[in-house]
Amino acid sequence: MIAQHELQRLINDKIARLPLNAQPHELYEPIRYFMSLGGKRMRPMLVLMGCELFGGKVQDALEPAIGVELFHNFTLLHDDIMDNSPLRRSHPTVHEKWSVNVAILSGDAMFVKACELMMNSPKEVVHKVMSVFLDNALKVCEGQQFDMNYEKAAHIALPSYIRMIELKTAVLLGASLEIGALLGGASEADAELLYEFGRKIGIAFQLQDDILDVYGDEQKFGKQKGRDIVSNKKTFLMIKALEMANSYTQEELRNWLQATNFVEQEKVKAVTAIYNFLGVRDLARKEMMEHYNKGMQALEQIEVSEQRKKDLIAFADSLMVREN
Amino acid sequence: MIAQHELQRLINDKIARLPLNAQPHELYEPIRYFMSLGGKRMRPMLVLMGCELFGGKVQDALEPAIGVELFHNFTLLHDDIMDNSPLRRSHPTVHEKWSVNVAILSGDAMFVKACELMMNSPKEVVHKVMSVFLDNALKVCEGQQFDMNYEKAAHIALPSYIRMIELKTAVLLGASLEIGALLGGASEADAELLYEFGRKIGIAFQLQDDILDVYGDEQKFGKQKGRDIVSNKKTFLMIKALEMANSYTQEELRNWLQATNFVEQEKVKAVTAIYNFLGVRDLARKEMMEHYNKGMQALEQIEVSEQRKKDLIAFADSLMVREN
Repeated sequence: MIAQHELQRLINDKIARLPLNAQPHELYEPIRYFMSLGGKRMRPMLVLMGCELFGGKVQDALEPAIGVELFHNFTLLHDDIMDNSPLRRSHPTVHEKWSVNVAILSGDAMFVKACELMMNSPKEVVHKVMSVFLDNALKVCEGQQFDMNYEKAAHIALPSYIRMIELKTAVLLGASLEIGALLGGASEADAELLYEFGRKIGIAFQLQDDILDVYGDEQKFGKQKGRDIVSNKKTFLMIKALEMANSYTQEELRNWLQATNFVEQEKVKAVTAIYNFLGVRDLARKEMMEHYNKGMQALEQIEVSEQRKKDLIAFADSLMVREN
Repeated sequence: MIAQHELQRLINDKIARLPLNAQPHELYEPIRYFMSLGGKRMRPMLVLMGCELFGGKVQDALEPAIGVELFHNFTLLHDDIMDNSPLRRSHPTVHEKWSVNVAILSGDAMFVKACELMMNSPKEVVHKVMSVFLDNALKVCEGQQFDMNYEKAAHIALPSYIRMIELKTAVLLGASLEIGALLGGASEADAELLYEFGRKIGIAFQLQDDILDVYGDEQKFGKQKGRDIVSNKKTFLMIKALEMANSYTQEELRNWLQATNFVEQEKVKAVTAIYNFLGVRDLARKEMMEHYNKGMQALEQIEVSEQRKKDLIAFADSLMVREN
């Protein structure tokens, strides 16, 4: 097995060498910029690790791995427009640095490039790889739409919220692993179990993200703190708080949700105080651990030596204790 | 050979039966709406005609044909946002009827759906079909970016303009035919000649579009007249007019291009008068016919009986004398 940092190096090298120098540079420059902002490269790592789990060659999986990363960054680029976010990884978003039009179009071009890289999968598995990729790409769009719907909704049930983060975030982690497994020669049954592992870990990962938005270290998290609160995102914390609050606190929360004229920092501070009072952070951690455990159960069922699974387990664990 | 109107019926039936009823309906409803606005269905027609030219089965080509149409509509949907267009085929655009965010995201989902349909090509040719599709999809993005660049540029040379419309419009007509040819069992050489035919006819088609924007019948054209003039699009007419105008007329044109505060109809009327004075409409027609003739030369070289080519020739001719 190749060491994690070596896989990271392979991924970053490949991204740096992507042929993105064509004309017009107004189309390709934002793609280079956005891809250069870094990030954890979690999805391509999962593709390569999924491939290695079944003894596949990392080189066969590298182009599709970068394809998934390009797709993921395309969704971030368009989400940034929709969420009106000024920063991405502590740098100006593409629509801020250039324009909304440039962000729409260079995002579209990124998606095309992503498909091209996915199509460079070995012939025997390309059809199945594309099917998993496109199926889950559509789910990511559905998740983003549910997310936008829920911002405006007065009441969201927790199961709807969990389904939304599953679609928006978790399925692509699952798909990355399943694609890696297919490229590595796994049986369809094992590939699906690995998808399940990724999907569950992904839900846990997003719940951790909800927690970090409020309780994370701004420097390390690389995003402004409390953006979810400012934009009225119905995160696990908010939904649970609305469920648990007595009528007085309920009203205070609703007032903040309906406020149109407010100082952002005051809103963040007030809502965080309510979260602390109700203890929703611990409940979020508990829910997170349940999904994590279910993911681990799926991984256990895969017929591969425990030794080979160690890196994936370590990776999943690192997501649960991360600071960014 | 199946009659043209029968091919149209097959296409429209298939579009009407696309599985677009999933949740969330905010994502899928705009796709259904946009696809129901009609249009000439030129690209799927070209896929089917390309397939039939080589004796292929139309049923094998139907899903990829709809895939190209979905892709084309996805680009229109996003272009409408970028161009700030209120109407598409006499109906409100998606960003007007819903919102910019909905238009971005449902466009993205359309692109995923388009890829899914392309992947339903027969196994033997799917790799080549996807390669032609994605290669040209990227060119369409490049063309749109050049188009946006040229709106702001003071001077565009005619060859740059022709290259832009080639990328933005013509290559997808070429790709539709090439994909059809591949699905119909054509040799790669013949498939490329058919691409060439489509590309040249496509440039001619776009020049006709430039003419119709100014001189077309608003009811039949289905768009507001003079949109290109209002938005300072450097069409063939405008570029040629700037080239030919004496210093007085030149200044008048530049004043309209730089005006920020104007009555739209007055601008359209004044610029049209200059076009009439300089006779640029006839020059545009002449350029259009040159590309048309080169396209016909490519078609002639394809080793298929003249009888089989008749429908394609009639189709190309209909584009040259159309009113919409």
